[in-house]
Amino acid sequence: MTTYQQIHLHSRPTGEPTADNFKLVEATLPALDDGQVLVRHHFLSLDPYMRGRMNDSKSYAAPQPLGAVMQGGTVGEVVESRHPKYKTGDAVVGMGGWQEYSVVNANQPGALKVVDTTHVPLSHYLGAVGMPGVTAWYGLVKIIAPKAGETVVVSAATGAVGSAFAALAKARGCRVVGIAGGPDKCAYAVNDLHFDVCIDYKQHTDLKSMSMALKEACPNGIDGYFENVGGYLLDAVMLRTNPFARIAMCGMIAGYNGEPLPMQNPSLILVNRLKIEGFIVSEHMEVWNEALKELGGLVATGQLKPRESIAQGLASAPEAFMGLLKGRNFGKQLVKLI
Amino acid sequence: MTTYQQIHLHSRPTGEPTADNFKLVEATLPALDDGQVLVRHHFLSLDPYMRGRMNDSKSYAAPQPLGAVMQGGTVGEVVESRHPKYKTGDAVVGMGGWQEYSVVNANQPGALKVVDTTHVPLSHYLGAVGMPGVTAWYGLVKIIAPKAGETVVVSAATGAVGSAFAALAKARGCRVVGIAGGPDKCAYAVNDLHFDVCIDYKQHTDLKSMSMALKEACPNGIDGYFENVGGYLLDAVMLRTNPFARIAMCGMIAGYNGEPLPMQNPSLILVNRLKIEGFIVSEHMEVWNEALKELGGLVATGQLKPRESIAQGLASAPEAFMGLLKGRNFGKQLVKLI
Repeated sequence: MTTYQQIHLHSRPTGEPTADNFKLVEATLPALDDGQVLVRHHFLSLDPYMRGRMNDSKSYAAPQPLGAVMQGGTVGEVVESRHPKYKTGDAVVGMGGWQEYSVVNANQPGALKVVDTTHVPLSHYLGAVGMPGVTAWYGLVKIIAPKAGETVVVSAATGAVGSAFAALAKARGCRVVGIAGGPDKCAYAVNDLHFDVCIDYKQHTDLKSMSMALKEACPNGIDGYFENVGGYLLDAVMLRTNPFARIAMCGMIAGYNGEPLPMQNPSLILVNRLKIEGFIVSEHMEVWNEALKELGGLVATGQLKPRESIAQGLASAPEAFMGLLKGRNFGKQLVKLI
Repeated sequence: MTTYQQIHLHSRPTGEPTADNFKLVEATLPALDDGQVLVRHHFLSLDPYMRGRMNDSKSYAAPQPLGAVMQGGTVGEVVESRHPKYKTGDAVVGMGGWQEYSVVNANQPGALKVVDTTHVPLSHYLGAVGMPGVTAWYGLVKIIAPKAGETVVVSAATGAVGSAFAALAKARGCRVVGIAGGPDKCAYAVNDLHFDVCIDYKQHTDLKSMSMALKEACPNGIDGYFENVGGYLLDAVMLRTNPFARIAMCGMIAGYNGEPLPMQNPSLILVNRLKIEGFIVSEHMEVWNEALKELGGLVATGQLKPRESIAQGLASAPEAFMGLLKGRNFGKQLVKLI
C-alpha cells in the first residue's frame, strides 16, 4: 500500500483565496484495472482559470467540487500501465490534478498524451507548448488575425500566455507591446521575449496614465489586444484602438475575486467598430495540433524561451497559487513534485 | 431666382439638443453646371446617428460642420438635370440634407440613385428599403448569422431598423423578441411586425426587472442581440445570453448625449464566449444590393409593413428630431416637405 499526497478544495473562497480553502490529504494508491495507467506527476500547472472554478457559480466549466482533488494540468511519467498504448517510462501530459500520482482511464480520448522531450523540456508542455501556448495561438491567429505591421498588445506579458503570444506575433511581423508588473518583468519582456515595448502597470495605475503610456508605446494605434486581466487595462486599450481592432478576451484575473469590473465606455465598440470575442481554448481542439507544432518549433529553435516560476513540493501549491493571482510569479507558475 | 429653406447646425449641443442648436435659413437656387442635377426633396430622414455627428468629437464620421446644412438622407424627384443618366421626374434617393432642394454632382459615385416606386412607396427608401433596412440586414445576417430556431432580440423594436430586423429574422425561422417603449408600440410589434414577444421597457426600468422580463420572453436564452440603445438593456441581455451568442452593436441612443454608459459585467463576454461587434452600414456597401433586394421583396409581399412617423414641413425637423432621440416617434421618423 503506497500512500501519496493530494490537495483538496476544502471550502470556497469569498474574495481572495486563503490557505484555509485548501486541505492536504493522504491517499492510498489503488490497484489498476484494465485500461488504466498510473502516472507519477513531475510538475503541476497553476493557472488563473482555477480561481473561477473555485466559485460555485454558473460559468463555462462546472465548478471544482468541494472535498475533491483540485483539478489541473500535469506532466509526468508512466510508472505502471494496463493499457497497450502506454508503457512505463513514457512522458505524458494530462489533467492529473493537485496530487503526486493519478490513475488515468486511458481509453478516454485525450486523457493522456505521450510527448517527446528531445527538444522540448517536459515542463514546457504545461506552458508554451501546452494549454497556455495554444491559448495565445488561438487568440492571436483566430481572433486578432493580425497583418504584418499591425500593433498588438497583451496584458500579463511575461506569463505563459503572454510569452507565447509575443513569439507568435513577432513571427507574423507585428509590433508587440506588453503590459506587465514591475521593472524586472518589463526588462525581461523586452530583452528575452522580444517585445518591442513593455509597459509597467505599477507605474500607470489609473486609466488616464495607462492610456497615455499606450499612446506612446503604440504610435500607430492598437489593432489587436489579447486580454488576460480586465479592468482599467481594457478601458485604456479601447481608447487607443484603431478602427476594426480585434480584442480576444481570455482572462479577467482581476474579476475572479468577485468585484464587478465594468467596461467604462462600451460605445467605443461602435465608434471604432471593434470586435470583442471571448473564448475558451478547450472548446477549439481542432487547432491544437497546428498550434502545438508551431509552438514546439519556436521553443526548439530558441525563438521562444519561456520562463518558469517553480514552487517545490505539493504542499507549496496553495501559496504559489495565491501568489499567481497577485502577479507574484515570474513566468509560468509550476509546482515541482519530484 | 427661386428661394428655398434650409436648416443649419447653429451651435453644438451639450447634452440633449435644443431648438437653439438649429437655424432656419433662406437660400437661393443656383444655376446648374454640367453634370449637376436639381432634386426637389419629398421626404427627409431623421436618424439617431445624427446626434453623434453634432458633437465635435472623434468618431467614425466627420462631425457635422457648424453653419452648414444638417446632413441627412432624402428622397425626391429630379426637377432639372444636366446629367445624361437622370431626367426630370426620376424618383431618387440621396444625401440631400435638411433642405427643400439639393444640387447634386451626379458624377460622384453613389450620390444619387434612381428607384422604382411601383411596388415600394418612395418614403420607404429612407427606411425599410434604405439605410435602416440594410443596417438590420447586416447585423442579423453578417454578425448574428442565426440558425432557424434560435432566439434573437432587438431594442428599439418598432423603429425602422427593428421592424426590418423582425421581418428578416422571422424569414429565417427565428424566435424574435423586441424591446420597445409603451403598450401601443409593443402591441404593434406583435400584431403588425410579427414579433413573438415585445417587452415594454417602461415597465422594466432597471437591470433586474428587465433581466427577469427577458428570461420569461426567452425561455431558451438569447442567441443574438441587435443593439440600438445601450445602457441597462445591454447589461440585461448579456445576463441571458447563451454560450456563443452574438451581439451586433449598431447604436447607443442613450449615450449620444454624453453620459458615460458602462457595461456592468464584461466578464460575461468570457464566461459565455460572446462575440460583440460594432459596425457602420455605410462601410459595407458590398452587401447593399443583396440586402435591398430581400427588403424590397418583403415590403412588396406585405411581410414587412413599416410604419412611419411623419412631421410636416422643414421647420418641424428639429422638434421631430428631438422627439426621435426621446423615443417619441412610432416607426421611421420622416419629415414631409411637399
